[in-house]
Amino acid sequence: MPTYRAPLRDIRFVLHELVGSEKLNALPGYEDATPDVFDAVLDEAAKLCEEVLFPLNQSGDAEGCTFENGEVRTPSGFKDAWNTFVAGGWTGLASSPEWGGQGLPLTLRYVLDEMICSSNMSFGMFPGLSHGAYIALVNHGDDELKRTYLAKLVDGTWAGTMCLTEAHAGTDLGIITTRAEPAGDGAYRITGSKIFITAGEHDLTDNIIHLVLARLPDAPEGTRGISMFVVPKFLPTEDGNIGTRNGVSCGSIEHKMGIKASPTCVINFDDATGFLVGEPHKGMRAMFTMMNEERLAVGMQGLGLAEVAYQNAVAYARDRVQGRAPRGPVAPDMPADPIIHHPDVRRNLLLVRSFTESARALSGWVGSLQDISRRHPDEARRQEAGDLVALMTPIVKAHFTDLGFESANHALQVFGGHGYVREFGMEQYVRDARIGMIYEGTNGVQALDLVGRKLPMDNGRAVMRYFGILTALIAEAREDKRIAGIAEATERAVGKLQQVTMHLAQAGAKDPAEAAAAATDYQRLFGTVVLGHMWLWMAKVASEKLDAGAGDESAFYETKIRTAQFYALRVLPQATSLGHTIQSGGASVNEYTPEMF
Amino acid sequence: MPTYRAPLRDIRFVLHELVGSEKLNALPGYEDATPDVFDAVLDEAAKLCEEVLFPLNQSGDAEGCTFENGEVRTPSGFKDAWNTFVAGGWTGLASSPEWGGQGLPLTLRYVLDEMICSSNMSFGMFPGLSHGAYIALVNHGDDELKRTYLAKLVDGTWAGTMCLTEAHAGTDLGIITTRAEPAGDGAYRITGSKIFITAGEHDLTDNIIHLVLARLPDAPEGTRGISMFVVPKFLPTEDGNIGTRNGVSCGSIEHKMGIKASPTCVINFDDATGFLVGEPHKGMRAMFTMMNEERLAVGMQGLGLAEVAYQNAVAYARDRVQGRAPRGPVAPDMPADPIIHHPDVRRNLLLVRSFTESARALSGWVGSLQDISRRHPDEARRQEAGDLVALMTPIVKAHFTDLGFESANHALQVFGGHGYVREFGMEQYVRDARIGMIYEGTNGVQALDLVGRKLPMDNGRAVMRYFGILTALIAEAREDKRIAGIAEATERAVGKLQQVTMHLAQAGAKDPAEAAAAATDYQRLFGTVVLGHMWLWMAKVASEKLDAGAGDESAFYETKIRTAQFYALRVLPQATSLGHTIQSGGASVNEYTPEMF
Repeated sequence: MPTYRAPLRDIRFVLHELVGSEKLNALPGYEDATPDVFDAVLDEAAKLCEEVLFPLNQSGDAEGCTFENGEVRTPSGFKDAWNTFVAGGWTGLASSPEWGGQGLPLTLRYVLDEMICSSNMSFGMFPGLSHGAYIALVNHGDDELKRTYLAKLVDGTWAGTMCLTEAHAGTDLGIITTRAEPAGDGAYRITGSKIFITAGEHDLTDNIIHLVLARLPDAPEGTRGISMFVVPKFLPTEDGNIGTRNGVSCGSIEHKMGIKASPTCVINFDDATGFLVGEPHKGMRAMFTMMNEERLAVGMQGLGLAEVAYQNAVAYARDRVQGRAPRGPVAPDMPADPIIHHPDVRRNLLLVRSFTESARALSGWVGSLQDISRRHPDEARRQEAGDLVALMTPIVKAHFTDLGFESANHALQVFGGHGYVREFGMEQYVRDARIGMIYEGTNGVQALDLVGRKLPMDNGRAVMRYFGILTALIAEAREDKRIAGIAEATERAVGKLQQVTMHLAQAGAKDPAEAAAAATDYQRLFGTVVLGHMWLWMAKVASEKLDAGAGDESAFYETKIRTAQFYALRVLPQATSLGHTIQSGGASVNEYTPEMF
Repeated sequence: MPTYRAPLRDIRFVLHELVGSEKLNALPGYEDATPDVFDAVLDEAAKLCEEVLFPLNQSGDAEGCTFENGEVRTPSGFKDAWNTFVAGGWTGLASSPEWGGQGLPLTLRYVLDEMICSSNMSFGMFPGLSHGAYIALVNHGDDELKRTYLAKLVDGTWAGTMCLTEAHAGTDLGIITTRAEPAGDGAYRITGSKIFITAGEHDLTDNIIHLVLARLPDAPEGTRGISMFVVPKFLPTEDGNIGTRNGVSCGSIEHKMGIKASPTCVINFDDATGFLVGEPHKGMRAMFTMMNEERLAVGMQGLGLAEVAYQNAVAYARDRVQGRAPRGPVAPDMPADPIIHHPDVRRNLLLVRSFTESARALSGWVGSLQDISRRHPDEARRQEAGDLVALMTPIVKAHFTDLGFESANHALQVFGGHGYVREFGMEQYVRDARIGMIYEGTNGVQALDLVGRKLPMDNGRAVMRYFGILTALIAEAREDKRIAGIAEATERAVGKLQQVTMHLAQAGAKDPAEAAAAATDYQRLFGTVVLGHMWLWMAKVASEKLDAGAGDESAFYETKIRTAQFYALRVLPQATSLGHTIQSGGASVNEYTPEMF
């Protein structure tokens, strides 16, 4: 049976020592979010995740959700866990106090997301999707919609969904066919069928609020003709209770590789009453408002699963004895040495750890940039932070889920045959991690977003800003002898990234197929460099702490620097090959015609 | 629902045009194995796999094996399929005619293995393990054991297993505790418990013949004190039927991530009657005889799963319409273009195809080398072929299963969300593929075998021979303008491999931990180069065919060269980064002490 302990020391390092919780505290509106409050929330979140959510993870996977007569039953214990989650106010952690939320920084929400995903990713989908619906409504809904729905989404009485995909329209939302007809009374009649609706139907809440993309009768073709509607399962009464059942029904649930405790539903809308969110035909804008936050949240799933997989792999590697260490017996009194003494096992563990800690740093940084982009008094600072968040969103989504999946697999491998057996729990992490690479825009779509939208955005302003940050950090770090080697390795990788970015900007401008053929390798290269950036930054902070005399904490900071060295020496070199691959050009892909396959 | 068609054109290319079936036909004992016979066998094998085994793959996964009262029931249809398999003589394809086998070349067996694994990997485990038992007995059993068991293993009346692993002893067989006491009558009493026994109990055959590793009372410690025993489920009578039940029982079956139709058993031996195979304390030798063939067979699983995953991903990519091609609409009359026109989808498909076709070539080459190593009249040729087989065994096992898993994942990704849903069949390929990286020696163990045993073997004779073959091929291919670019890319990667090999030989001689820390990256580098070798060789043959005027077949050969170009430009560059990583040295792993984790 796997175990989980929230990595609070490392989370505090990221929040307090790296990003700086006092800087968040200084932002207007976050006056109450003192570093002490952060710590108190972290302790409570850890308790919730370790004691309430984690114990339901394996049983939830084994039992799964069941579908009968249009109703979905969540696995045993999920309803109680939801009630505990709601009672603790976790559904509204970063929501506005105006609607009953706690108004804490978004940075903290990502930290909570990591812990929830480590302990029970399927469970985490329920509040995750509700929060997505909250974001769409708070940003695009009119006052009446806000008054009717937000408080109940925030306090967890009701839950929300995102209804985008149709059987024939996933990545390409421009071809959806769900229709919305004006009902004459200001409302609309929604008809169509949506698939892959996470938490589309369940037994955790009295009501489920669907945010649905549909086409009005006069809609222009493509994505410019899509509108967003609120379609509740039960129509709310004047006094805010649930009223008559709407024309919304669950047709079936999918049988999936993983996240089996999260129901993935076919949701049918049959002349259902809906309410327009924002302007007609501007639904894609509202969709992206929530989608961008969801993409960052999906990235946290990759990190969370990698973290719990790592913890269990380390525990197993300390415990399991097998063979002798290459330099001779380490435990001569035992029949064999613990496998953590085998270099190849350590290499596996280090690949995972060098991902989790840098990903945690990046999520802390991006979270803080999001907070700055919304609350900083200086518009220039807000804009800069917003640019960086936009640039990093596809990286966090795609690179974290790619490496989350790889990490779960590395960790499974440490268990040998036991990793393949259900009871040890490792194979569930692999199955659960696989979906992150697919939903909320496949990782191929993220790569195209990076190359096709984020790089050219405002004439490359975001990426140029980012390169500036990298250059400054490398220059500073070079001055610190303890980490100068890491700085040099980072500089080489950054140099390759800059070179390739120029190449792509030129080649892609001439031929979009050229950029498209390079996109995934470029995203991998970019992600590899960004995590290298985090390692250099963390190593610099750790080195400064050691210089200042870290006492009992010295081992923590020394290990940080060691892990940074591992990443610099054994992961960053991938940048070279990725660069060569991209620079070889797109012809080997683009001239390989469909009939050749 | 997925589909499968045996890739007969490409298999024939490998057998007839690349490896040369006429060369196999010329070996003593293979006089009847004419190219026509090869073709006839291929056609029948394809029919069997497509029509009998493949239709049971998804249902077998969904139903799984069941365990009740010590008995294992295989999924519906498996018993009938086994009977069809046996009736067709497939269990004895490459077994000796002396024991009722068909005596066909081993090369053909690997081809059959690929098709079986494409169509139903779980099913393939049953004959696969039986063949392993056959190999151990035919090479190490005495005449009586051979007379008693071989014909029935070959004709499929009985099945076999390999009982090595114990709960505390997997990779490290030196610490097994299963005991064998002499019974006084020449037989032994075997007591102990084995785990992870594939096909350890099932309902396909009347009897199951376990090959069991155990320790005699006077056994030296470690692997030098292990003996091998035949322990049948039912003791055979004088006339070759089944007699009394032996002290062998199945304690349980594992609940696994995949290969659910293959029962993975706990097998308990309780004073069971066993018969010594070979000499006392020399069981590891017999074990490796069968293990080496099994490792190659496991490699075929990676290839087989990648092939079927590829076929389905291509079909989906042609059929699914979504978005527009980057250079503008390709199917303007349809709402969107088939996704095969998206460069990133093609890139995914090409990564898989550039693996499957080169892996098929390598399995054909290694199979033919195995045949040559056993049957060539010239001892020097036999030795050379044997060296190369030994060198390639860990590559085929580890690289094919690593890339088989990666390929199944690439193919799943093409399906987007549908890839994650069971009915489309892709997620089963991923789950089934994951085990290949673990069993018959984890891929980490394969890498250590490559670095620690195969490289230094006979002062590097095998690897030097292999480099000689590479150098000669590159020199020839450079003269052919059509493929000179591929030759140059291959030469760069080979140069990096040679450089790193020298580095490792020196560093590893001083400190075994240095080689161990580099092993997995080195194995990946070696595997990447070997598949590059196959691509260059295939491209050369294809180019010669085009020069000679290939008529209707021109498209086939031109596509071969295109795929070789893709591999050279977009996969081979990985060699550079792997080289850098290895040359960074082992300190970042070896000095990272256990308490730091």
